[in-house]
Amino acid sequence: MTDSTRLSLDQKAALLSGQDFAHTKPVDEAGVPALTLVDGPHGLRVQDADQDHLGVHESRPATCFPPAVAVGSSWDPDVAGSVGEAVGREARAAGVAVNLGPGVNIKRSPLCGRNFEYYSEDPLLSGVLGTAHVRALQSQGVGASVKHFAANNQETERMHVSAEVDERTLREIYLPAFERVVTQADPATVMCSYNRINGVAASQNRWLLTEVLRDEWGFEGVVISDWGAVYDKLASLLAGLDLEMPGSGGKNDVRLVEAVCSGEVPESRVDEAVQRVLTLTRHHTEPTGRFDADEHHALARRLAAECAVLLKNDRQSLPLAHDAEVAVIGEFARAPRFQGGGSSHINPTRVQSALDSLRELGTNVTYAPGFHLDGSPDESLRSEAVSAARAADVAVVFAGLPDAHESEGYDRDTLDLPADQIATIRAVADAAARTVVVLSHGGVVSLEGWHDDVDAILDGFLLGQAGGGALADLLRGEVNPSGHLAESIPLRLQDNPTYLNFPGEQGHVRYGEGVMVGYRYYETAQVPVRYPFGHGLSYTTFETVDLTVTTTGPDTATASITVTNTGSRAGKHVVQLYVATDAGPVRRPARELRAFTKVALEPGQTRTVELELDSRAFAYYDVEAGRWVTAPGDYAIQVGRSAADVVAEQRISLDGEVIRKELTLDSTVREWFGHPDVGPRFLDRIAAGMGEQQAHDPDRSTGELRMIDSLPLHQFLNFLEGFGGGVPAEEIEELIQLSKTTD
Amino acid sequence: MTDSTRLSLDQKAALLSGQDFAHTKPVDEAGVPALTLVDGPHGLRVQDADQDHLGVHESRPATCFPPAVAVGSSWDPDVAGSVGEAVGREARAAGVAVNLGPGVNIKRSPLCGRNFEYYSEDPLLSGVLGTAHVRALQSQGVGASVKHFAANNQETERMHVSAEVDERTLREIYLPAFERVVTQADPATVMCSYNRINGVAASQNRWLLTEVLRDEWGFEGVVISDWGAVYDKLASLLAGLDLEMPGSGGKNDVRLVEAVCSGEVPESRVDEAVQRVLTLTRHHTEPTGRFDADEHHALARRLAAECAVLLKNDRQSLPLAHDAEVAVIGEFARAPRFQGGGSSHINPTRVQSALDSLRELGTNVTYAPGFHLDGSPDESLRSEAVSAARAADVAVVFAGLPDAHESEGYDRDTLDLPADQIATIRAVADAAARTVVVLSHGGVVSLEGWHDDVDAILDGFLLGQAGGGALADLLRGEVNPSGHLAESIPLRLQDNPTYLNFPGEQGHVRYGEGVMVGYRYYETAQVPVRYPFGHGLSYTTFETVDLTVTTTGPDTATASITVTNTGSRAGKHVVQLYVATDAGPVRRPARELRAFTKVALEPGQTRTVELELDSRAFAYYDVEAGRWVTAPGDYAIQVGRSAADVVAEQRISLDGEVIRKELTLDSTVREWFGHPDVGPRFLDRIAAGMGEQQAHDPDRSTGELRMIDSLPLHQFLNFLEGFGGGVPAEEIEELIQLSKTTD
Repeated sequence: MTDSTRLSLDQKAALLSGQDFAHTKPVDEAGVPALTLVDGPHGLRVQDADQDHLGVHESRPATCFPPAVAVGSSWDPDVAGSVGEAVGREARAAGVAVNLGPGVNIKRSPLCGRNFEYYSEDPLLSGVLGTAHVRALQSQGVGASVKHFAANNQETERMHVSAEVDERTLREIYLPAFERVVTQADPATVMCSYNRINGVAASQNRWLLTEVLRDEWGFEGVVISDWGAVYDKLASLLAGLDLEMPGSGGKNDVRLVEAVCSGEVPESRVDEAVQRVLTLTRHHTEPTGRFDADEHHALARRLAAECAVLLKNDRQSLPLAHDAEVAVIGEFARAPRFQGGGSSHINPTRVQSALDSLRELGTNVTYAPGFHLDGSPDESLRSEAVSAARAADVAVVFAGLPDAHESEGYDRDTLDLPADQIATIRAVADAAARTVVVLSHGGVVSLEGWHDDVDAILDGFLLGQAGGGALADLLRGEVNPSGHLAESIPLRLQDNPTYLNFPGEQGHVRYGEGVMVGYRYYETAQVPVRYPFGHGLSYTTFETVDLTVTTTGPDTATASITVTNTGSRAGKHVVQLYVATDAGPVRRPARELRAFTKVALEPGQTRTVELELDSRAFAYYDVEAGRWVTAPGDYAIQVGRSAADVVAEQRISLDGEVIRKELTLDSTVREWFGHPDVGPRFLDRIAAGMGEQQAHDPDRSTGELRMIDSLPLHQFLNFLEGFGGGVPAEEIEELIQLSKTTD
Repeated sequence: MTDSTRLSLDQKAALLSGQDFAHTKPVDEAGVPALTLVDGPHGLRVQDADQDHLGVHESRPATCFPPAVAVGSSWDPDVAGSVGEAVGREARAAGVAVNLGPGVNIKRSPLCGRNFEYYSEDPLLSGVLGTAHVRALQSQGVGASVKHFAANNQETERMHVSAEVDERTLREIYLPAFERVVTQADPATVMCSYNRINGVAASQNRWLLTEVLRDEWGFEGVVISDWGAVYDKLASLLAGLDLEMPGSGGKNDVRLVEAVCSGEVPESRVDEAVQRVLTLTRHHTEPTGRFDADEHHALARRLAAECAVLLKNDRQSLPLAHDAEVAVIGEFARAPRFQGGGSSHINPTRVQSALDSLRELGTNVTYAPGFHLDGSPDESLRSEAVSAARAADVAVVFAGLPDAHESEGYDRDTLDLPADQIATIRAVADAAARTVVVLSHGGVVSLEGWHDDVDAILDGFLLGQAGGGALADLLRGEVNPSGHLAESIPLRLQDNPTYLNFPGEQGHVRYGEGVMVGYRYYETAQVPVRYPFGHGLSYTTFETVDLTVTTTGPDTATASITVTNTGSRAGKHVVQLYVATDAGPVRRPARELRAFTKVALEPGQTRTVELELDSRAFAYYDVEAGRWVTAPGDYAIQVGRSAADVVAEQRISLDGEVIRKELTLDSTVREWFGHPDVGPRFLDRIAAGMGEQQAHDPDRSTGELRMIDSLPLHQFLNFLEGFGGGVPAEEIEELIQLSKTTD
């Protein structure tokens, strides 16, 4: 590999920005190839001419695998890994060095237009799936680019908005998925986002790109800008960004050379970045190997079937009986919505509709479109659908959000399905013997206004090009549904904790809900939802028993739980382990997902699974200490069928870590009394000074004692003197010294 | 008056800190008297020895008028003024120069322990009442000290916590009451608070104490520290604080002299502060005049009766019939809770119980205590109460929060009444023919668990020493209730918008709800409450008709409305005028109180009232422009019986102010398209460049157009070039110049 010391300054500068939308610059003289970087992550977006990064122009055909919204609902790292591996294969075959993905941003608001590219509202689920994707992608020799780093949780004003978010919230919610991917999967690159964080652009954020990412997490790959996210080349480089994409037509290269010459930017920083880009060339490849489009399509179908979530299944309406006469209704049945818009938009190798697939499976089907995708009302289409529904044993309505409703680049302003679709669902439900609704959408849609009218709901999100086949497999029971919600479905948009603060105003978006994102909020504030995070039904039944939790250290534990398939079909069950506590000085969510695993079980089969709970399963981020702390206290380990439905619980007590703060005269009475070493001695001293009678004076109400809690000690000492119970300065000094020396 | 130039530096320094808890230092040689400053604001707290600022020691007897929680519910500046004037009279008689109050902090959370000292969750209501109090107090020659400036909305960690609050929220919610008092009532002093604001202590906050308070609002009085709020004398002085209380035993005086000598603090700043303190001596007085304790008690009774709120009155249970046999139940009937704890705690001249007062009014009364104030359960007390209730025509239960539940110095953690009291209310309601509940409390209490069981609820808050008499007057119909809620009563604590972020953690409290405080939140997020802000019943009925709104300028209007007393008793009606809009670039609350007036009407009497809506009734604070802006657009002027119950509405259109931002290549496409002058020309230019066919290409979905909204222009121009529709740099430069020259 070329060494940066053999390159001229001009050559080095050239290596730190792109040549065009999809390539870095080669340095032919030094044998440095141009690297090809193309969009992903659920398929390959190779454009034959340099065109755009917005998904407007068509790209070369590639398999469109289930987007992250679906993979998130699989709760299965094997699904995420299979997508990553297959995309890696297609990337090698196309000579692609880096595939841009996965996206592990948190779904802060259900309105975010790009939520379909993200896994979950939960950082653990996002991190585990992202890690699996990166490992598998990179196993094919293709570099990943985990994105969009960080706090990029909306599309509105994404290039300008400043996410105003406190450090605990960043550390506990918005960074952990990145941290896990970086520390466990060693991604070739990390892509910084467009937005600002607390006023500083991600691309110029030294705290983010250097202190956290490199110094704390040990990232050794290339930090790459989102396309166009470099606003000030020099500031970005100094903050820790390495590679600017797509480049500036050379302008910034010249500026960088000048800055190095003038001493504004140290050449050592340039060398460091160049060395990383050179290291990235290990992923360079000519088109290598091939992929079988049929096999990948079949894989996409199998994977998609793992992702859909059976939300409701009254009267065992699903699976469809083999001999049932089925009225298939809805434009989405024949013209599937299976991916989102923007840079991840794939030109699929083929598209399979649910209508065709149901017929291929031998289902007795009639079809009526039911509504127009553009939302224009059409009573005749509705009447036709109602007639078809009335004549059938069961009506299956394929509803959802049309393409234009959601995309990279803008956010939604409602959770509602188009009114015309709701009218059709209700009319059909009114007429049909049974009604099943199948949903296609990237972001959460509201089920209100029709939920109670229908018998079953199968949520298909966006399932990729073979999603139609997968939906048919699930409807017919060829595959048993095993997806679970990776995002809560609220009753009303207003119930979402970001309602007041999304998408922000005048250049700022306040993360006012702090760590209380998604189910953390709904469960903590006891706000009812339509379906909670983690919810998902099956055609079989599972029983979980014998939860046993054993502490394995001051801040770690192991949990074991036994799962039995008590029904008559093979199926997969997701064991969800939550931790609930109010330990520590910060507000804890009611419960947080801390471990999970998906278990496949034949009918009657039993398995005992073990799940590790490491210290992070119990810790909060202490902003005063500047690190993760596990507080001493009680922790409930809960097995949930969802975040709202705890079916087993065991409490453990952890020694954790006692934080001893050095006391001063400005420390509060509460801090003095609460100090593990000083507190008891100080209290004794006061009691002695005041004498028995006064210390136990019943007129000293608890109110008065609580009132002094927040007094600085120096004021409290004055107060004590007023009661004739003063403590000499030497004794106070001694206690202060004591607070410094213990640990 | 002494001139500061005649004082030595030592003397000047001495004048800038207190001598003790209640006095400034005299400079006898220069004829400067010591000023007496004592706690208020709903009564006088003169302590004969220098003791404490925590309300622990008893003070000289004084009339305890209704605290601010009650005055707020009067919605009547005359009530606030009467309190101020009477306290002023008592202050003169005691030789007091400055009475510390009123408190105009906003009730951000119902849990704040000091809410009883504040008027409302609404800044207009708080500001109007505070202004009336200050004017009336100062009409007696006594200086006011409007407090606690600013963002002091909790007691927990009040000396350390940093209120993390954005400027729009400060300007629209937390500062306007101070602004109104300062600009309309010229208070002698403003008291800065203990807390930090966005990391900077209020006492060291130059932006707050100098830029906003003096430069913008024109304040010319003394900025005084809350007692013990000076953490760094020099930093405080440089930030704009004048007088440190209660002083540092001279230590800070020495430090200040040294700092002036070393040049660290300019002597001009010292002179300025000294001059203000000298000006304050105009309020100095020897004990002057007298007050009649009987008259003041009678006044306190009349005022208290204006404040209580009749929340519920089913079956016309109130007023009590003259011949009714009344079972009076509850310890609060004979041992009234009428004030809060802490520095405002008054040693009352007398205390009147509701039980005695009802008897004095000739009511046929039996009494049972019903519960213990300390919360210890007692079934025999409950049985006794039930027997009394069963034997009577009506049971009146006096419930509420005992003293220890709320005070300056700490916050509550629940809205619930003590469980034992709820049990007694329910048992009594079960047995009694009719049940009335009278509540005494400083902060909001939950009515859940018993609300539906009782017939009537009279909310007495804390009504001062004559509250018992006032409650009797209201129960018996001697006075017609006319109070209205100054604070929403939620169904659950979790419904409050501060639920996640109160009282904060690790030294910070995030004002995550922004401007959506109290009813602004409940109405905007459509969260149901038990009783909304502004709610209050009467023994008569009112009709409001003929709302007419006339614009009087680009951003002002006048509203007139006709009110008729359609019942058979004299009564007072509060006309509440709200403004609702979504104009402008910021999220607006569903509606905001913008004008109000209380109208007394005899039965059958009609009055037409006119209310002015000045520009602030329509404006939002624009953080980019750094000033108040009235956006062009539609505004609904709504008459509400409460914030939740709009009975009349008229829409107006305001020209407002079109903000023209200078455009740059970094401005977004949205900003370019939206610019009033440049936008249309730019759009035309693009359409021309792309040609008819492309501009109207049906494949260019709205999605794609929305996607580019947040692109910086320079990226959009690249994008246009890709479509063959580029715009030459000269033309762009021309448009940029156009954005700068228009206004």
